[in-house]
Amino acid sequence: MYNDFFKSITEQSEKFFSPAIQFNQLVAKNIEQLAKIQLDAAHSFTETSVEQLKTAAEVKDVKSFIDFNASQLSAVNKLSQQLIEDGQKLTQLGQDFKDNLETISKESVKAAKA
Amino acid sequence: MYNDFFKSITEQSEKFFSPAIQFNQLVAKNIEQLAKIQLDAAHSFTETSVEQLKTAAEVKDVKSFIDFNASQLSAVNKLSQQLIEDGQKLTQLGQDFKDNLETISKESVKAAKA
Amino acid sequence: MYNDFFKSITEQSEKFFSPAIQFNQLVAKNIEQLAKIQLDAAHSFTETSVEQLKTAAEVKDVKSFIDFNASQLSAVNKLSQQLIEDGQKLTQLGQDFKDNLETISKESVKAAKA
Amino acid sequence: MYNDFFKSITEQSEKFFSPAIQFNQLVAKNIEQLAKIQLDAAHSFTETSVEQLKTAAEVKDVKSFIDFNASQLSAVNKLSQQLIEDGQKLTQLGQDFKDNLETISKESVKAAKA
Repeated sequence: MYNDFFKSITEQSEKFFSPAIQFNQLVAKNIEQLAKIQLDAAHSFTETSVEQLKTAAEVKDVKSFIDFNASQLSAVNKLSQQLIEDGQKLTQLGQDFKDNLETISKESVKAAKA
Repeated sequence: MYNDFFKSITEQSEKFFSPAIQFNQLVAKNIEQLAKIQLDAAHSFTETSVEQLKTAAEVKDVKSFIDFNASQLSAVNKLSQQLIEDGQKLTQLGQDFKDNLETISKESVKAAKA
Repeated sequence: MYNDFFKSITEQSEKFFSPAIQFNQLVAKNIEQLAKIQLDAAHSFTETSVEQLKTAAEVKDVKSFIDFNASQLSAVNKLSQQLIEDGQKLTQLGQDFKDNLETISKESVKAAKA
Repeated sequence: MYNDFFKSITEQSEKFFSPAIQFNQLVAKNIEQLAKIQLDAAHSFTETSVEQLKTAAEVKDVKSFIDFNASQLSAVNKLSQQLIEDGQKLTQLGQDFKDNLETISKESVKAAKA
């Protein structure tokens, strides 16, 4: 009995839920990309920060202070570049997300009219 | 005796370290802005996600499923917009950082020649 | 017609899905608590770090270096205490989560047998 | 001339700054451990969440809903266990941090008296 109940629901609901499923898969895919960008950024930023913190903690005379500032300069240059690139990735991801939503909405309306 | 030692170091080092201090203050200011952008983003993303998770957990029939998908659509629209804006903020911050570094470098060279 | 279809599914599915819904609400509640603990920790850690970074960037002589180290000591003491408390909160949350899961599982089995 | 100035500062400051350097190295080491615990936790939590989000987005009938709930149960069990372990790690790290601070303080006092 349960089998029939399940099968009946399955068939009727597949058509009904199809746009929602497509939409939720898009959300999942985009959250995955967002998580990847932000985790990579957190990883890279933490690695650089900890490295600089360790170098700063080694400063014990003028020479090591100069060395630290040189490495700080290079770390900050790397960070600026990463910020620019991560910013572009996030902006692009937001735009893709918007475009995909629009496409799905249009297809939904078309399917509903068909 | 210590007082004299401190005073002597202080005077001589202030001139010597001045560009490094200016640079480190710039780094601190930019890290603060970066932290603010990322913490705000994490806060807003978490709030929306938890809200959606709670709405999803309330889904118990077709009506609540439709309601959930409507709220999901609005959440995703908000997220897309936030990604675009955060991306632009990060890119701008990275660019400002680079510009400031260049200005400081030029001033350092000028001061060293003077 | 759709109304009848919805109503029929609703009635039949409510009983069937009830344990899953209860479980998903528990998950949502616990994720919310976890997010709160971690966001608060990130906020507090970032605030302290940025404050220390700004103080470090002000170091320009022996006096400000001594001041920085005193404030560093107090910041680290605060951080240690926060780590201990956050650790206890996470451990407690994990344990509550486990206990709740067990309770729900037992109730599910009982309900299935009834 | 600069060489002599540097050498003189170096020698005099090494003794003076030694406890501060030791302390800052301890801070750097502990921040590194904290960052590792939190990044690993964020990575693992994100991976599980994205996996569950993708599985949830595949739900299209009762069978896939049951599958999703089974995988949700296993994910939550894993998360509870991870929370308990991460909590213990953070608490331990906070305690180690405190103990190390005390040891350094005592050694500083002893060195100052010697």
